Amino acid sequence: MKAEIITIGDEILIGQIVDTNSAWMGEQLNLHGIEVFQITSVHDQHEHILEALANAEKHADLVLITGGLGPTKDDITKKVLCDYFDCELVLNEQVLANVTERLTKRKVSMNQLNKDQALVPSKCTVLNNSTGTAPGMWFEKNDTLFVSMPGVPFEMKSIMSEEVLPRLAKSGKAKSIYHQTVLVYGIPESMLAEKIEAWETALPDFIKLAYLPSQLMIRLRLSAYGEQMESLQEEVSRQIDQLKLLIPEHIFGYNGDSLAGVTGRLLVKAGATLGIAESCTGGMIAHMFTANAGSSVYLKGGVVAYSNEVKMAILGVKSETLEAHGAVSKEVALEMAQGVQQALHTDYAVATTGIAGPDGGTDEKPVGTVWIAVISKQNIKLERYTFAHNRERNIMRSSQATINLLRQLLLTENPHLA
Amino acid sequence: MKAEIITIGDEILIGQIVDTNSAWMGEQLNLHGIEVFQITSVHDQHEHILEALANAEKHADLVLITGGLGPTKDDITKKVLCDYFDCELVLNEQVLANVTERLTKRKVSMNQLNKDQALVPSKCTVLNNSTGTAPGMWFEKNDTLFVSMPGVPFEMKSIMSEEVLPRLAKSGKAKSIYHQTVLVYGIPESMLAEKIEAWETALPDFIKLAYLPSQLMIRLRLSAYGEQMESLQEEVSRQIDQLKLLIPEHIFGYNGDSLAGVTGRLLVKAGATLGIAESCTGGMIAHMFTANAGSSVYLKGGVVAYSNEVKMAILGVKSETLEAHGAVSKEVALEMAQGVQQALHTDYAVATTGIAGPDGGTDEKPVGTVWIAVISKQNIKLERYTFAHNRERNIMRSSQATINLLRQLLLTENPHLA
Repeated sequence: MKAEIITIGDEILIGQIVDTNSAWMGEQLNLHGIEVFQITSVHDQHEHILEALANAEKHADLVLITGGLGPTKDDITKKVLCDYFDCELVLNEQVLANVTERLTKRKVSMNQLNKDQALVPSKCTVLNNSTGTAPGMWFEKNDTLFVSMPGVPFEMKSIMSEEVLPRLAKSGKAKSIYHQTVLVYGIPESMLAEKIEAWETALPDFIKLAYLPSQLMIRLRLSAYGEQMESLQEEVSRQIDQLKLLIPEHIFGYNGDSLAGVTGRLLVKAGATLGIAESCTGGMIAHMFTANAGSSVYLKGGVVAYSNEVKMAILGVKSETLEAHGAVSKEVALEMAQGVQQALHTDYAVATTGIAGPDGGTDEKPVGTVWIAVISKQNIKLERYTFAHNRERNIMRSSQATINLLRQLLLTENPHLA
Repeated sequence: MKAEIITIGDEILIGQIVDTNSAWMGEQLNLHGIEVFQITSVHDQHEHILEALANAEKHADLVLITGGLGPTKDDITKKVLCDYFDCELVLNEQVLANVTERLTKRKVSMNQLNKDQALVPSKCTVLNNSTGTAPGMWFEKNDTLFVSMPGVPFEMKSIMSEEVLPRLAKSGKAKSIYHQTVLVYGIPESMLAEKIEAWETALPDFIKLAYLPSQLMIRLRLSAYGEQMESLQEEVSRQIDQLKLLIPEHIFGYNGDSLAGVTGRLLVKAGATLGIAESCTGGMIAHMFTANAGSSVYLKGGVVAYSNEVKMAILGVKSETLEAHGAVSKEVALEMAQGVQQALHTDYAVATTGIAGPDGGTDEKPVGTVWIAVISKQNIKLERYTFAHNRERNIMRSSQATINLLRQLLLTENPHLA
C-alpha cells in the first residue's frame, strides 16, 4: 500500500512552524507496513489543494490530509473536499453532539462557528475526535482512501491512533503491529552492532530492528508484525530477554524512560536518599532528577559549587587538596561528594568537576575533561571522562555519565532491584 | 517570485528525521520577499524525482532541491538532473580543488567516491560549499531557476546564505533585507499588541513587523526592505529606540540573547556576585546561568534545597518559619535567599519555593504557585506567581520569572548599565 501525506497551511510554507506531523505520520505508517512515497505541503488555496489531491490520487492508495479545519479556516478544506468528491455540506448529528459536549464541559456557549464544525461533506464517514471539536473525515473514491484531519498535533495523533490505524488494520490494509523500544547507554553504535550481530541475524522474519541513536542514548526498536497480538508480545519479550544477556550493563530502560527517571525509581525502591554536588554541570544533574514528579521522595538537595570558595565553605573541600591537585581532579571530586553526603545526611552522593568550555582547557586537562565521583556509605567510584564537544553537550554528557554511574552502583549494591 | 522546495530522501518519508531544512528555507525566502507555494518530499527514486521537477517547473520561478548528494547516493540526484537538463556529468576543477583541500586538512586520502564529487552536470553553474565536499548546483531552464544543495543542514544553510540568496538579491529577484529581533518578556501578546499599536501603524511601509511568541518570550522581528543597507539599519535602529520608550521594562535583549545571558552580563558589568537557592525549580536557574560561557565570573554557586532539612541545615531557614507559614511562603523564600547570600558571601541572591506539580497543590496554594525572593545588600523583592501549567513548564516559567526579577533589580540599583 502506498501513501501520500498532504499538509495544508501557510505556517509551514513560511517556516513559522516545522512540520512534525508528517514525520510522525510517516513513522506510524512505516511501522504499519505502509510506504509513504510523497509528502506535499500546500497553500490554503482552493485550486492548489484540488490539484494536490488529483496528483496524489494518481499514485496513492491512501491520502492523509491535515490542516485547514480550524474554525476560522473551516470553509477552505471542507469546501475543497466537497468539490473534489462532488457533494455538499450536511449537518452531522454525531459531530454536533461531540461539539456540544466539549463546549458544555468547558462552560463555553455555542456560537455559529462552533455549529459550523458539525457541517461535513455528505460523502464522508465521520471519524470521532476525542480531543477536539473538528472531526476526522474518511472518503473512498475508486480505489483510493482519503482521510482529512485537523492539523493540531495532539488531535491528529488521537484520530490516527484511535480511528485511522485501527480501521486500516481491520480492513487488512495495514499490518497489525507490536513494538517495544529498548534504551541503551554507554556503548558506541558500531560496537553495539558488533555485540548483538548474531542476535540480530537470528531474529525471526516478522520482527524488524531499528537503531535510533540520539545525543543521549541509542534506542533499539523491535517491531513485530502478524495476526496474533499475544504471540507477538511473547516473542518480542523473549527476544529482549536474550538481548539483556548480551549487554546487561547497557540496557537502562524501555520506551519513554529517562536515565534520571529510572535511577530515581531505583532510589525509591532502595529506600535511599541522594545528595548532588555539581561544579561543571552547573545544576543540570539536579534538574534532570527534579524534572521527574516525585523526586522529592529521594532527593534531599544539591549544591552547585562553582567557585572554590563554595567548594570549601559548603562542601568542606580542603584548600590543600585544591592546591595540590587542582579543582578538576579525582581528589576534589571525592571530597565534594563526601561533603554533600555529610552536609545533607544522604545515603548516596554524586559530584562533578570539570571544564565545560569553551575556555579553560590545558594540554593535560583539555576542554571536556570531567572527574565524576559517585559514593554510597560503603563504596566509592571515581571516573574520568573527556567529552570533546561544545559547552552544551559537555554539560549534558557529563550529567548523563554521572547518573549512569549512580545507577550502576545502586544495582551493584542492591542486586534484587535489577 | 514563486518558489517550490523539493526534498529528496527516504529518511523524511519514514519519519526518521523531521524536515527542518524546509522550514528554514521557507523562512529565509519569505524574509526575502519570495513566496513558497509548495514543499514536496520525495523518495530517492529516478522517475519520481523527474516527475516532481516537472510539476514544480509548471508553477515555480525558483525550485530549491535538497538531498541525495551524499557520496553513497551521489548518482541519484546528479543523474536525474543530467536527464532533466539533457546533459552529462563532467569533471569540475573548482570542485576538485575544494574536495582536495578539505580532505588534506582532515588528513584523509582521496578515494574514488571523493573524486566523483567533482563530477557535475555540464549545464550547471557550481556554487561553492564552504563547509563540505558536495557542491551546490545552479541551473536555468526557460524562465525557471533550479538550485540543488546537499541535505546536511549546515551545508545547505551556508550555500543558501553565501551563494543563493546573494545571487537572487543581485539579480533583483530577491529583495535585499535587514532584520533585527527585539526580545520581550513579561507581557501577554494581546497587551503588547495594544501598547505598541500606534507605533506599529506608523512604521514606514518598507519595515515589516512579525510577532514570534514562544514559551519563554515574545520575539518582535523588524524586517526592512530596500536598496541602501545603511539607511535600512539607521531606520530600524530609530524605530527600536521609539519602541524602547513604550515598553522599557519588557525589552531585555536582541537577536540571539537569553534572559540569563543578559542578566549575567549585567552582573559582570556591575562587578557583582550571585548565589542561588532553589526549591521547586530544582537546579534549572543554576543551569540557565551556567549554560553561558564565563558564568564563573559572577556565579559563586547555588543550593538546591529540595527537603526542609536542607533548607534549615544549609540555608539557615528557621523551623518556626516553616511551621508558621509552610515551605511555599514569602517568609521561607526570603530566608532561603538570605541564607544563600550569607553562606556564599554574594552581593545578590535569588530563591524559589513552590509547587511544580503534578501533585502537592491545595485550594490555597494550587500547583504552579511559586514564591520568589530576589535580594541585594540594600533591597528585597518578593513576588508570588501562579503558573498553571504542567511540571516542565512550571519549572521553566518560575526560573525565567526569577531571572527577570533579578535583572530588574540590577537595573534599578545600577541605572548606568541600562
